[in-house]
Amino acid sequence: MTTWLQVKDALKAPVGSTITVKGWVRTRRDSKAEGGLSFVHLHDGTCFDPIQIVATGELSNYTSEVTKLTTHCAIEADGVIVQNPKGGNEIKATAVRVVGWVENPDTYPIQPKPHTMEYLREQGHLRVRTNTFGAVARVRHTLSMAMHRFFHERGFFYVHTPIITASDAEGAGQMFRVSTLDLMNLPTGGLKAHGDKLAPAAAHPGGIDFSKDFFGKEAHLTVSGQLNVETYACALSRVYTFGPTFRAENSNTARHLSEFWMVEPEIAFADLQDDARLAEEFIKHLINACLTERADDMKFFDERIEKGLLARLRDVLDKPFRHLPYTDGINILEDAVAKGVKFEYPISWGKDLQSEHERYLTEKHFQQPVVLMNYPKQIKAFYMRVNAPGTDGAPGDTVAAMDVLVPGVGEIIGGSQREERLDVLDARLDEMKLLKESYWWYRDLRRFGTVPHAGFGLGFERAMMFITGMQNVRDVIPFPRAPGLAEF
Amino acid sequence: MTTWLQVKDALKAPVGSTITVKGWVRTRRDSKAEGGLSFVHLHDGTCFDPIQIVATGELSNYTSEVTKLTTHCAIEADGVIVQNPKGGNEIKATAVRVVGWVENPDTYPIQPKPHTMEYLREQGHLRVRTNTFGAVARVRHTLSMAMHRFFHERGFFYVHTPIITASDAEGAGQMFRVSTLDLMNLPTGGLKAHGDKLAPAAAHPGGIDFSKDFFGKEAHLTVSGQLNVETYACALSRVYTFGPTFRAENSNTARHLSEFWMVEPEIAFADLQDDARLAEEFIKHLINACLTERADDMKFFDERIEKGLLARLRDVLDKPFRHLPYTDGINILEDAVAKGVKFEYPISWGKDLQSEHERYLTEKHFQQPVVLMNYPKQIKAFYMRVNAPGTDGAPGDTVAAMDVLVPGVGEIIGGSQREERLDVLDARLDEMKLLKESYWWYRDLRRFGTVPHAGFGLGFERAMMFITGMQNVRDVIPFPRAPGLAEF
Repeated sequence: MTTWLQVKDALKAPVGSTITVKGWVRTRRDSKAEGGLSFVHLHDGTCFDPIQIVATGELSNYTSEVTKLTTHCAIEADGVIVQNPKGGNEIKATAVRVVGWVENPDTYPIQPKPHTMEYLREQGHLRVRTNTFGAVARVRHTLSMAMHRFFHERGFFYVHTPIITASDAEGAGQMFRVSTLDLMNLPTGGLKAHGDKLAPAAAHPGGIDFSKDFFGKEAHLTVSGQLNVETYACALSRVYTFGPTFRAENSNTARHLSEFWMVEPEIAFADLQDDARLAEEFIKHLINACLTERADDMKFFDERIEKGLLARLRDVLDKPFRHLPYTDGINILEDAVAKGVKFEYPISWGKDLQSEHERYLTEKHFQQPVVLMNYPKQIKAFYMRVNAPGTDGAPGDTVAAMDVLVPGVGEIIGGSQREERLDVLDARLDEMKLLKESYWWYRDLRRFGTVPHAGFGLGFERAMMFITGMQNVRDVIPFPRAPGLAEF
Repeated sequence: MTTWLQVKDALKAPVGSTITVKGWVRTRRDSKAEGGLSFVHLHDGTCFDPIQIVATGELSNYTSEVTKLTTHCAIEADGVIVQNPKGGNEIKATAVRVVGWVENPDTYPIQPKPHTMEYLREQGHLRVRTNTFGAVARVRHTLSMAMHRFFHERGFFYVHTPIITASDAEGAGQMFRVSTLDLMNLPTGGLKAHGDKLAPAAAHPGGIDFSKDFFGKEAHLTVSGQLNVETYACALSRVYTFGPTFRAENSNTARHLSEFWMVEPEIAFADLQDDARLAEEFIKHLINACLTERADDMKFFDERIEKGLLARLRDVLDKPFRHLPYTDGINILEDAVAKGVKFEYPISWGKDLQSEHERYLTEKHFQQPVVLMNYPKQIKAFYMRVNAPGTDGAPGDTVAAMDVLVPGVGEIIGGSQREERLDVLDARLDEMKLLKESYWWYRDLRRFGTVPHAGFGLGFERAMMFITGMQNVRDVIPFPRAPGLAEF
């Protein structure tokens, strides 16, 4: 029995080692050499490159099996590590055992040729067998590990916030209902199914009685773990969540998913500047980890997915992020419009930036990541800290919110300092017609030992697109969910 | 401006350092010394122990503020590290700034006295401020990190399997429906809401038309990522999932949650023995990480939650796990019954073990962790590999399944070698009246380059209970979800 090495290790093993490899055939090429000679490229997913196995007619099953190997046949090969004439290791096989054939190779859905991304999405159970999706999977792993390591090394604690929630966390975003009610036999006469924010928790004739549902009230899938994780930040100082979040929006775009993963750190005794510093450090840490730990896959993305990707990422690493008040950002955009730049959506103070505006700032005007800070109060969530009037010379009220904009993607992080003053928070809830009683526990954090605190959210798939250059968010998550799409 | 240190670092800082700490008051004790002298214990969640701040009447706000501090007031303190007469560091304060008061200290829900676990569950937003739940949160973090590190170091890739699914992954377990249908205006005339497994995908009069729902079909919350992650194992060799899973079972016990986290590794070119070895190595790695990295919290659990916890865990570390055929396990249990041991549920070959049987084997009979292997086919899932007849001298057909049983908890891991042979898998699907068409993509893995593979699932909260000695699963997850329970 020889030593089983993974392909990544076999590629680095000393010449002369006797080893076994196990994996799947990427390609087979037969030479015309007398007696039989075939080159089989074997991959096992542990790195981008396959290893070449040299099989000759001396193998007992050479004609009966080796010359019949096709893409993704599973094999084990014993052999000796030898130097490939072009450099690098290859294996001179002493035995090749077929573990699993491919049924009808001609109709196998993943042929050794380019397929469109659209086609591969329909092969969600097989697409990870391609170069591109193998690389995406490894980089996604590396990004996850780098994220956890970043926070762990800085004393953050990972908190699992709930997925099923009975409260609309941000008072924003359409949500999926979670229920076990029998749809053919709904209990009626209870609460109003889709009540106004201010509707009292009383019976509405003809409504659904959610007290009969599994959780005794209407429940949904979370849109953010932030409010929950704030409760932990106000005891453990530095915490973060990483988990799936959901949006029931009917948008079928290359940038939106119904189910996506989000990273949300929250830091106590911190203000918006601390938050922005953390965000910059975080993004640079993530890029750096992928460039160093997955140089093989990143080279592939640079060559085949986005020319210039590595240069773009190194550029982000090299420069400090540009901090800019929202108010100044609007001035720049209005100047641009005055000078003839065309945007689809009009922009002026008080409006939220569209993707085109974000990308103009980060890609055209500054050509570097930008942290836009202190947004108009009226376009932001109730929990963001209200700034002193006139902050940054703004013509209206602002809150301590920030968005981090990066070239190639636009907004990648959204964050804020949270409103820690109970009276100001209450005024905001009233202003936005949100029920204070619904936020009783969130308000408690301000009643009992409140502290300045801040945090942000990073869409994990956005970060994947930013780092790999992949153009469709459905291609950076293993099994995408979107309107009409819940396959596999 | 002095250096801000977290409490864990302040406790180790050199005597004479001038520092600032920020956190929350745990207790305040006033001495009768002339001129004023108070001892304030401050915690910031970074470690189990608080640090003692010595504040004297020389502080300008001593009478007005310091002597009014109560539990969980937020403060910042500047001072010098001095040696406490009883050993360890304390801080001689030069300034104490109050950041956030506690409103009505007498009615603050978390008093500096013991509270029941039941009471604290109602204070889910504040309970992490207690010693017990702070320790639980830190150990949960440590367990998460240790888990990721274990797999990363062994070349596994972390795969995010989907939460929303249109397929009942295991053909087992009640599921939550995910929907955006308007309950007051349901589209009818479509598919049957709760069809038989073999019901054709045709219209049933009066049924709900799920083609009008968000995903174009009926969708649920996942009960396991296993089937999905197998698709990745068959390309990347070693993978794992870690994410929330769901059960809509109406069981209100100390061991069940509706939403819980699960770790599921999957390894290609592996059999049940490899799986069992991985499981043992994994559990020992997790214990070891918690004992070394969170010695402070583990000492607390040993002293206050389960006397003898540390000895129990070290014992698990010291011995190799006992591997035992299910058939032999049944013999031992039947012998025990013959000798007068009373079980609530009868046990005989072909029956699944109840918790009492599992605990008898691991706690009484062997007094060590047990890996029970090769279970009767009829009590296990369709995807488990069918053994050769007569394996382990079993009187009936068995499959290559295993359960890992540990003292104090019972089953902590369930796993199996997967059926990689298409014909056998198909026969099992037929036998269990499961529709082959529903598993088309799972079957494809067996049609195209199939390999022997195996994996297991570890319930993360079970592992938490095992390692902390906490007795109720609702106390080892931040915000538990159970029937009637979706608070916070």
